[in-house]
Amino acid sequence: MKKDHNNFTNFLEVIKIGGSIANNPSALDDFLKNFVQLDHSKILVHGGGNAATNLCKRLNIPIKMNQGRRITDEPALDVAVMVYAGLINKKIVAKMQALSCNALGLSGADLNSIPAKKRNHPEIDYGFVGDIEPDDINTHHIRRLIEDQIVPVFSAITHDTKGQLFNTNADTIAASLAMALAGNFDVTLTYCFEKKGVLEDVNDETSWISELSRQQFIDLKNDGSIHEGMIPKLETGFEALHQDVKQVRIKNAENLVNDIGTKLSL
Amino acid sequence: MKKDHNNFTNFLEVIKIGGSIANNPSALDDFLKNFVQLDHSKILVHGGGNAATNLCKRLNIPIKMNQGRRITDEPALDVAVMVYAGLINKKIVAKMQALSCNALGLSGADLNSIPAKKRNHPEIDYGFVGDIEPDDINTHHIRRLIEDQIVPVFSAITHDTKGQLFNTNADTIAASLAMALAGNFDVTLTYCFEKKGVLEDVNDETSWISELSRQQFIDLKNDGSIHEGMIPKLETGFEALHQDVKQVRIKNAENLVNDIGTKLSL
Repeated sequence: MKKDHNNFTNFLEVIKIGGSIANNPSALDDFLKNFVQLDHSKILVHGGGNAATNLCKRLNIPIKMNQGRRITDEPALDVAVMVYAGLINKKIVAKMQALSCNALGLSGADLNSIPAKKRNHPEIDYGFVGDIEPDDINTHHIRRLIEDQIVPVFSAITHDTKGQLFNTNADTIAASLAMALAGNFDVTLTYCFEKKGVLEDVNDETSWISELSRQQFIDLKNDGSIHEGMIPKLETGFEALHQDVKQVRIKNAENLVNDIGTKLSL
Repeated sequence: MKKDHNNFTNFLEVIKIGGSIANNPSALDDFLKNFVQLDHSKILVHGGGNAATNLCKRLNIPIKMNQGRRITDEPALDVAVMVYAGLINKKIVAKMQALSCNALGLSGADLNSIPAKKRNHPEIDYGFVGDIEPDDINTHHIRRLIEDQIVPVFSAITHDTKGQLFNTNADTIAASLAMALAGNFDVTLTYCFEKKGVLEDVNDETSWISELSRQQFIDLKNDGSIHEGMIPKLETGFEALHQDVKQVRIKNAENLVNDIGTKLSL
């Protein structure tokens, strides 16, 4: 018998939205209306896109770079915490509450849910950027929240457990939560972004691939068809599939509840 | 037999700190070291003092006034949410986690914990300022958190349950939480501030009053001895005592764990 995920109580969907939705009030409203109607357990993870960079500019905080990589110094971290864990997170939570969805906004410091380590790169000091291991995620309280019908809303802020906050990639947070909870739930990881799915031709929106295998991904990466920013997202997605996440999907937020989009397969 | 609050499992202390502690890293560290050692259930409520005003200035957001009263327009609200629910709240949570205290930062929108109504003043539109009624506070999830040994850390942000965030006075949030939870716990409400207690002579730090009755308060208010900013704090404190809060204290944060300070009595 085909398992009906929507009625399977142990099903959990981890959905990540980026700044193009989180920072656009009407896109966010449309997304949340679909999101709250999903009748299974869910976690929302949001990035913040350019909102933090824009606030840095308004505050004349210079964007520090090293060998072409952006460095998160203390002023830039403070801005990230304000924008991601503060403004964007609380606006999303308030909108979800208005839709009768019992949301709880979290950073990785709250409930010590997502401990991280300062990025350790041989050549570049990225500043206050935290890398996470799925095994370090403290799932106990996250599971309690889900059992209590609460919807956790994670911003892309973590901590080192010693008092230091970090900026962390939102795609990685979503994938790590999915992997960490795969032992307790049948987890689907859904990345929402502005395209219909992974495109064979980046200039042709209709060229989305419904199912992408790891080998196809490698081929498309090698021939340069896959856009640069998509590569780490897909690599994290394949890693999640490998680590017992049942399903990984890449889709446009407006297709959250239908079948349009790319499904990864090993 | 004298009830020993420290060992009485149904004892809950709601402690409010202002911006002079929340925005001063060494004062905050000192306070939190004492706070986390309190061996009873506790809730922390923090204000943000001038931090939001300072950020408004840096962003060239004009401070709007009407008849001498400050108005919270949308840009000022966004700044309050960023500073209070974002930066200050998450820094406190990370510091508490570093002290092995399982903190969870909350705004009133999170878990729909503190619904508020837009201030309805006959002459002045205060903008996005929310007033709260203790009866409206949703204590269910707050009690669950406390039962799970989690320490809620509230910022002074609430919501109208329809998607709008509000700025709300932190003293009022602390008192309202204390009153709302007085049916479930023996609640002590503690206001921390920069003086040793309520002073008979505002210029003499040694003149703190150990026990202040409602009648003494009225007398001191009438003869002008009590400083302007202290009046609403004390009125809220007496209201809390009246509404079954067991104890209300006003003290310097550094005396959190000793007897120095003012205790209110009806």
